[in-house]
Amino acid sequence: MGGAGFTLGQLATTLKGTVDGDAARVVTGVASLEAAGPEHIAFVADARYRQTALTSRAGAFLAADDVEGLPAPIIRCREPRLMLIELLHLFHPAASFAPGVDASARVAPDARVHSTATVGALAVVESGAVIGAHVRLHPLVYVGSGAEIGEDSVLHPHAVVREGVRVGRRVIVHAGAVLGADGFGYAWDGSAYRKIPQVGSVVIEDDVEIGANATIDRGTLGPTIVRRGVKIDNLVMVAHNVEIGEDTVIAAQTGISGSCRVGKGVVLGGQVGIGDHVSVGDGAMLTSQAGVVSDVAAGAKLAGLYGRPLMEFQRIWIAEAQLPDMVRRLRALERRLEELTKGE
Amino acid sequence: MGGAGFTLGQLATTLKGTVDGDAARVVTGVASLEAAGPEHIAFVADARYRQTALTSRAGAFLAADDVEGLPAPIIRCREPRLMLIELLHLFHPAASFAPGVDASARVAPDARVHSTATVGALAVVESGAVIGAHVRLHPLVYVGSGAEIGEDSVLHPHAVVREGVRVGRRVIVHAGAVLGADGFGYAWDGSAYRKIPQVGSVVIEDDVEIGANATIDRGTLGPTIVRRGVKIDNLVMVAHNVEIGEDTVIAAQTGISGSCRVGKGVVLGGQVGIGDHVSVGDGAMLTSQAGVVSDVAAGAKLAGLYGRPLMEFQRIWIAEAQLPDMVRRLRALERRLEELTKGE
Amino acid sequence: MGGAGFTLGQLATTLKGTVDGDAARVVTGVASLEAAGPEHIAFVADARYRQTALTSRAGAFLAADDVEGLPAPIIRCREPRLMLIELLHLFHPAASFAPGVDASARVAPDARVHSTATVGALAVVESGAVIGAHVRLHPLVYVGSGAEIGEDSVLHPHAVVREGVRVGRRVIVHAGAVLGADGFGYAWDGSAYRKIPQVGSVVIEDDVEIGANATIDRGTLGPTIVRRGVKIDNLVMVAHNVEIGEDTVIAAQTGISGSCRVGKGVVLGGQVGIGDHVSVGDGAMLTSQAGVVSDVAAGAKLAGLYGRPLMEFQRIWIAEAQLPDMVRRLRALERRLEELTKGE
Repeated sequence: MGGAGFTLGQLATTLKGTVDGDAARVVTGVASLEAAGPEHIAFVADARYRQTALTSRAGAFLAADDVEGLPAPIIRCREPRLMLIELLHLFHPAASFAPGVDASARVAPDARVHSTATVGALAVVESGAVIGAHVRLHPLVYVGSGAEIGEDSVLHPHAVVREGVRVGRRVIVHAGAVLGADGFGYAWDGSAYRKIPQVGSVVIEDDVEIGANATIDRGTLGPTIVRRGVKIDNLVMVAHNVEIGEDTVIAAQTGISGSCRVGKGVVLGGQVGIGDHVSVGDGAMLTSQAGVVSDVAAGAKLAGLYGRPLMEFQRIWIAEAQLPDMVRRLRALERRLEELTKGE
Repeated sequence: MGGAGFTLGQLATTLKGTVDGDAARVVTGVASLEAAGPEHIAFVADARYRQTALTSRAGAFLAADDVEGLPAPIIRCREPRLMLIELLHLFHPAASFAPGVDASARVAPDARVHSTATVGALAVVESGAVIGAHVRLHPLVYVGSGAEIGEDSVLHPHAVVREGVRVGRRVIVHAGAVLGADGFGYAWDGSAYRKIPQVGSVVIEDDVEIGANATIDRGTLGPTIVRRGVKIDNLVMVAHNVEIGEDTVIAAQTGISGSCRVGKGVVLGGQVGIGDHVSVGDGAMLTSQAGVVSDVAAGAKLAGLYGRPLMEFQRIWIAEAQLPDMVRRLRALERRLEELTKGE
Repeated sequence: MGGAGFTLGQLATTLKGTVDGDAARVVTGVASLEAAGPEHIAFVADARYRQTALTSRAGAFLAADDVEGLPAPIIRCREPRLMLIELLHLFHPAASFAPGVDASARVAPDARVHSTATVGALAVVESGAVIGAHVRLHPLVYVGSGAEIGEDSVLHPHAVVREGVRVGRRVIVHAGAVLGADGFGYAWDGSAYRKIPQVGSVVIEDDVEIGANATIDRGTLGPTIVRRGVKIDNLVMVAHNVEIGEDTVIAAQTGISGSCRVGKGVVLGGQVGIGDHVSVGDGAMLTSQAGVVSDVAAGAKLAGLYGRPLMEFQRIWIAEAQLPDMVRRLRALERRLEELTKGE
């Protein structure tokens, strides 16, 4: 496969798909439908994007079976979204990086850094920390004493992993995220709030991704736990003692209060708020800006403040438009009935 | 008191409580009810947790007087939550740290760092800054020119204190928090927004705690002020010219707009929004996700967008469930009345 | 103009205004109405602040024509808010800083740093990055490989500009902001979420300001674009593939989901949420905490969840106060009508 690009035939073989059109055509990159030129292959997620694709200048398309009549050859495959991932890896292979500790990094003598790990410029690794195989600590990362970073994990610049936090394998922590800050806990002593020491930790299991400037606080006594495969977007807040189940997805700016239990495969939209000690069942979905203060059943789909079933929320939302008029009509009815009965 | 643990008798003495059971039993740590083993003492906040405590494997409990019949010895004391703090300090004494400036830190020649302060690896202290006694600057902290950090304060990794900001005593600033970024102020000049220089500062009084990645902007002309004992959670935004009264508590992701006055002892839930120039009276409470754009009376308890009294908000919320049906019923009434009067 | 201050006459000349009172009076600084003493000039934005001004101890005022009868000389000018900017620049001239790369900064050999640029202590500039004329990188800033920072731009401590991101001229990036973290995109493969590589970039045009701890994610294929003059407050989230039009203003903690198109001159209040793929027309306004999931017309002014026209939202909000009572009254009407018709 030449460095200058790939033929559609080559791509189809790699993507286990078929070419609908000229298999000898060469493309040199992937681009959006709008930005693509003849040298690009563009992605048509589903039939809704067909209209945009018709005016695209792309030299080829990656599309599902149900997208027809595009103005350039099509690579068809069963799972186009997964194949897009393959395509992107083909055209954008992961940058290699040299293992080793940058001379300007500050690594405690008793920290254990695997020989295949990379510690970037001006990164800090404190006493007793363990950095696994093939881990990449970008510049200016902080890893506290006794913290552990599992193999193949990546910490972007300015990520902070405080003391004792355990990060699994293949975890990605984006820039500025903070794992293990103290949970927010105080007791009023009659004249001031006194801080409850937060001596728990944070456990991040394998294959988790944590967005830029997100914060995951350490538990009061035990750990705050983020299970395998959880995806957390930017600026999300996970409070102390929370446990988040496998494969749950949390969009940006959502906040999960202390001691919540969030199940597996849950989807939380952006700016959702979950009150403390709330349990959210497996597979539940909270739409963006929803707020819940009591337990959520598995599979429920809630919206709005105090979280109503989405369908009910929408019916109310529509009915509300008539509410000002209903005030007037109700009063009119009362008057007419008053007159009617007065006449009796 | 031996390093291996404490007897319940020893703990009761320290906590000014009594032992209900075997005072010679030894515990070596504090754990949650769920995680505790026979070597742990677990905390029962109040009678609501009794059921969980009944199945706990804890070797002892710290509990209030009204919790009865637990499956292991109980240390009883009047303020169990405050005593939990004592207990945690006993089992987790604060880590000692060596005073002095790390060789890799960058401290301006004319900055004044107290001899008992610690300046961590790769921290930056700019010209004219003053670092008080027993202050701890963690690695990668930034303290701008002329800023002052009062004694016994702690700045966690990546905290940023910009020029001229004054931080009091015993203040804790968590990782990634930014004190003193420019306030958000512009004037439209007919063709573009022009930046209004923000030449004020930030004043943080004693005993304040500021959460990870929170931001407190500098004032336009004078200071943004956070009074003694205020507790601010992660990702909170405090805009320019705001003043926050003593002992106010602000949960995560809440935003306070420019020039607000927030009173003493106010409680702001998570994701609350306060519009600019709003005054919030002493002791008021805004529940999570509430939004207010006009002044809030002292002691008020508000919820929802435009902040209604909580009880009223809840009554409306409950009534809303009937709204779609009311639309139908109102129309039916109108028709029936129409028919009635037509018949006249 | 002596170092000790300026006469009102001197200031009036510079501000192209007139003095109403003693032009020889000297002031040495600008202060708020509340904090000003006789040595200060204070700003009276408009007639609403007249009452506060009457009790101010300020030695002079800067005010619009319609503010009358103040207790000290007044400098009158046509655009007092713009003139405040001039005044602040006069009293607070921008600090000069020495060009050059601090010895502790880590600049890749093949990065190009302009000779007039300043690279602060412990900053990192990666391979192939380009730092323009008069740029100021504060300490602990990170600029990734191939990133470009246009002339006269300022990056505050701990700002992160990841690889390939292009920042225009006169851009201000506040502390802790992250430009170019990976967009939040996954495909479910039947057993786990697989990460869609985010190979696009971020383009920040000229004269943009980005608040502390804000995050702007890189695009999936193409760039996330922030157009000229956009002002973004703290803790704002701009997701992948978004484009924000010129002179749009975005208040704190607002989130814009993936692939949105936000027009020119749009105003987004604080904590606003915009769902993915939404288009917001030029000049639209979304009030604080509004949420929209469908396109917004140019010039529209929306409020609340699912974004209603502001006036309609307010009418509904007012009517809602009667809703619990309406439930009762509607039932009463039904009963009375029932009785009436039963009697027939």
